[in-house]
Amino acid sequence: MRIVVLRLGHRPMRDPRITTHLGLTARALGAEGMLLTSEDKGVVESIQDVATRWGGSFYVKAIDSWRNALREWKKEGGKILHLTMYGINLPDIIEEVKGVEKLMIVVGAEKVPSEVFELADWNIAIGNQPHSEVAALAIVLDRLQLRSNIDALKLDFGGKIRIVPRGRGKMLEEKDE
Amino acid sequence: MRIVVLRLGHRPMRDPRITTHLGLTARALGAEGMLLTSEDKGVVESIQDVATRWGGSFYVKAIDSWRNALREWKKEGGKILHLTMYGINLPDIIEEVKGVEKLMIVVGAEKVPSEVFELADWNIAIGNQPHSEVAALAIVLDRLQLRSNIDALKLDFGGKIRIVPRGRGKMLEEKDE
Repeated sequence: MRIVVLRLGHRPMRDPRITTHLGLTARALGAEGMLLTSEDKGVVESIQDVATRWGGSFYVKAIDSWRNALREWKKEGGKILHLTMYGINLPDIIEEVKGVEKLMIVVGAEKVPSEVFELADWNIAIGNQPHSEVAALAIVLDRLQLRSNIDALKLDFGGKIRIVPRGRGKMLEEKDE
Repeated sequence: MRIVVLRLGHRPMRDPRITTHLGLTARALGAEGMLLTSEDKGVVESIQDVATRWGGSFYVKAIDSWRNALREWKKEGGKILHLTMYGINLPDIIEEVKGVEKLMIVVGAEKVPSEVFELADWNIAIGNQPHSEVAALAIVLDRLQLRSNIDALKLDFGGKIRIVPRGRGKMLEEKDE
């Protein structure tokens, strides 16, 4: 399953940390990239810096129009999953979603335009309680991949640096080039 | 399984949104409360406001000393799980953790003191890649409860307001009192 995350309504002065967390979570849990509806160099750089050092081919791109991005994705046969606490709860709909080949996951900030609800193939809640778009993205990525027998926590990024997991303390391994 | 989250190193001016996301995630996914190592009225109020309207008995408490909180928890027979990207990857250790009755999940910010690594029963990573403490908390709560056959997305909070899940649009139900 190819997964791209579209972050809607990012406000450069207000949301840098949340959007950075979203991007890093998307990467760590196997999405191929993130689209941002507003330019924010600090966010793009901090995510790409992680990707360079820790491996993989994750990308972050600013786009001009979420509307065009969603329409093109659908034209190419992709499906759209919009995360909203008002939607159908994930456990009740995951069987429909799990076989999709190309999935765009839309993550809003405040005030998502109703057109997004209309364009989405699925409006899906991660529990129907108010919590966090970062938590919601993490759980949908984790559960969708587990349904395809992929453990997103076990992905190998082949980066220049990697952690050697330990019960106590910290160990990093760095490859020479 | 009783679960309490301990947020370490929250800096009131810098982390309010991340800590709020942590608290709301903890609540939505079935933890009983969150301890904060520094007073931050804005954060406490915004989480408690959600708990009041949306139901359940989630609490947020400021504490004086994380060291004492961890030691007391252990004295009462509780176990401590410290989330760190340097730790053992969750899938490789979850069998050991899943049967625990009282679990404290420690979530650090920057620079966690080495004493935390020592006091923890487990230092556990959610994938050994840099991402987000909110995502990490979400996944550990989700996976641990799934192992006990509890779907954290299906918890019933019995709140004054609740969402009626829909494929399109938004519907809230509000109870009269």
